[in-house]
Amino acid sequence: MKEYKLPKGFFASGVHCGVKRKRRDLALFYSEEPCNTTALFTRNRAKAAPVILAQKQLKKNNLIRAVVVNSGNANCMTGKRGMKDAVKMAGTIAELLKVAENEVLVSSTGIIGKFMPMDTILKGLPSLVKKLSLSGLEGASEGIMTTDRLKKIEIRFFSAGGKPITMTAVAKGAGMIKPDMATMLCYVMTDARVAKKALEKALKKATEVSFNAITVDGDMSTNDTVMLMANGKADNKIIKDKGKDFEIFQKNLTDICTEIAKLVVRDGEGANKLIEVRVKGARSVIDAKEAAGAIASSMLVKCAVLGGDPNWGRIASAVGASKAFFDINKLEIILDGVTLLKNSNFYEVDRRTSSIFKSSDVLIEVNLHNGKKEAVVFSCDISKKYITFNSFYTT
Amino acid sequence: MKEYKLPKGFFASGVHCGVKRKRRDLALFYSEEPCNTTALFTRNRAKAAPVILAQKQLKKNNLIRAVVVNSGNANCMTGKRGMKDAVKMAGTIAELLKVAENEVLVSSTGIIGKFMPMDTILKGLPSLVKKLSLSGLEGASEGIMTTDRLKKIEIRFFSAGGKPITMTAVAKGAGMIKPDMATMLCYVMTDARVAKKALEKALKKATEVSFNAITVDGDMSTNDTVMLMANGKADNKIIKDKGKDFEIFQKNLTDICTEIAKLVVRDGEGANKLIEVRVKGARSVIDAKEAAGAIASSMLVKCAVLGGDPNWGRIASAVGASKAFFDINKLEIILDGVTLLKNSNFYEVDRRTSSIFKSSDVLIEVNLHNGKKEAVVFSCDISKKYITFNSFYTT
Repeated sequence: MKEYKLPKGFFASGVHCGVKRKRRDLALFYSEEPCNTTALFTRNRAKAAPVILAQKQLKKNNLIRAVVVNSGNANCMTGKRGMKDAVKMAGTIAELLKVAENEVLVSSTGIIGKFMPMDTILKGLPSLVKKLSLSGLEGASEGIMTTDRLKKIEIRFFSAGGKPITMTAVAKGAGMIKPDMATMLCYVMTDARVAKKALEKALKKATEVSFNAITVDGDMSTNDTVMLMANGKADNKIIKDKGKDFEIFQKNLTDICTEIAKLVVRDGEGANKLIEVRVKGARSVIDAKEAAGAIASSMLVKCAVLGGDPNWGRIASAVGASKAFFDINKLEIILDGVTLLKNSNFYEVDRRTSSIFKSSDVLIEVNLHNGKKEAVVFSCDISKKYITFNSFYTT
Repeated sequence: MKEYKLPKGFFASGVHCGVKRKRRDLALFYSEEPCNTTALFTRNRAKAAPVILAQKQLKKNNLIRAVVVNSGNANCMTGKRGMKDAVKMAGTIAELLKVAENEVLVSSTGIIGKFMPMDTILKGLPSLVKKLSLSGLEGASEGIMTTDRLKKIEIRFFSAGGKPITMTAVAKGAGMIKPDMATMLCYVMTDARVAKKALEKALKKATEVSFNAITVDGDMSTNDTVMLMANGKADNKIIKDKGKDFEIFQKNLTDICTEIAKLVVRDGEGANKLIEVRVKGARSVIDAKEAAGAIASSMLVKCAVLGGDPNWGRIASAVGASKAFFDINKLEIILDGVTLLKNSNFYEVDRRTSSIFKSSDVLIEVNLHNGKKEAVVFSCDISKKYITFNSFYTT
């Protein structure tokens, strides 16, 4: 059995309290030392109560010791009562852990527009605290899941500031249809000692090429949260926002976030295949992202991948309708390594193309031949299961 | 049997030549007098050859006598050979009709990235011309269809410039998933005498609230075409771009285009329900369109409508993620006449909500309470059939 290691000084737990019918629905991450913490949240105007609370809290105090998460209810569009419930959750955990209230953050995920079943949740919190352990990561990972099929945990070991560092990420997220990415939550914990500015810079950069490369254009759900907590227990020389140590930290964080993002896409509701869209030859990164995003979010392209159909015309049409600037006569399309369009010459579907879109990882490469910038966006195919999942959710 | 009347001086026909297996695949619209003609085309950079040709042609000469359309092949991404094929189609029809080559336009719809089966098409053209008749509209309507289930013909009778006028529109289009609206073709014929400037102004305005209100954000397919032809056979006093006659003309054109647009949505691949999204209380029309478009194109909202699930949280999330400006605490959501969110108060699903999203026409009303502007966008639900349709197209 694979062991999921937490960084030094971190503990985790997950329990079932009854918000969801069977699976665990509460999770707790706790550090014995206060963590230098930074987070990125959804830009949706319909923000959930715990998101609003966490944003407020982190502005005043970014030394955090615990994050409590419930799944099954998003506590979103729940007005003043929702905010009171989120505050109550934080307060109760603070009391149980004997830490200050402003050292606890809350996250929620699940259905929008329903009040939290607070009695049920409050009853579950004591056992959640009791079960905190060094090996509680797997349970906590289940506690934050909703429609996820895959467990999303990633760990990296590296050296920085003269000491061995552990970095562990746990996440949930399985919807992936722009502009309605189902809630994505990700908690990255590390025992590295890192300056606040370095944490912020690193998380921003890592998110740009990972979680923001699956939401396509920055559209986000109501509860999306990516959090980075560093408790300094590795006792390393502090990592500042420049230099070799920062580069190593950044590389590992980007790496871990990208892997998690790919897991989220691979676990897309009803998805069978991971689609990697690489656009190069763009005059700007924005153009490259535009083009890649247009392809990655095209329903017709997703359907073609599902059907194993090398229908490059749909890709040309999607990129043609995007805001990216290019000359259609120079457009080059390569599907799973096979060039299908180049210099206005295209290739008929034949033996060479029979393997395209047939494996579980597919690659769409597009060269705009209009510059030197590039971008990668990850997506997944769509199947009938997606429709089933999402047609009968509340009722 | 319903009779589909052509305006005075117009003739139409549709035949099967063999591009498609069974259904008619060629159509011809012909006017014995040259028509003052204006058209709007796709803004996709990947324009089909006939679109490029028609744009060029209309710049030089907008007095058109005939439009020939084939379905089954889009003649798109086909380079120089594609252009040669489109020119050949126009030339052949001109010869057969004994009109000038620059009086004939061409449209194509179907698969992208395949050369036109020109032998098959050229063989079909003589009988297409022979079959031209006053009652050929229904056949022509079938000749331009691809995955359409519904016939799309609309007729209006009105008086303008002192004479009775007939206006007849025929269209195809059945895909409706942004940003990949399958090709939409629409030909509006009228016997009114209309000045060029008035035609252009009227078509632009009508398209804005009809066809552009179903493509959501102006993204278009490779072959989209809306054409307005006026041959003046009604012998009315010429309609200029102002005044009461223009208003009547505009009203009827807008009306006819809106009805056709709704038919296209209703016929969305695998769709069961027409969704009307009305956003009001916006600070600008652009904001209203943004919000309405975000709701109308949300996969999760479409799934909720399919499932008859009054999941207003998904609507709040979609509009919250849009670029529209508003205060989430003032957001009001009314589904099929039932208020579900107002002043941060929401309503639990109960008897009152059991009829929501259950009929074939559903209405989503959102008030941003942030101004006086509004917009309407039409959409449809999505079903498993959409996936089936689009997963196995070329192969």
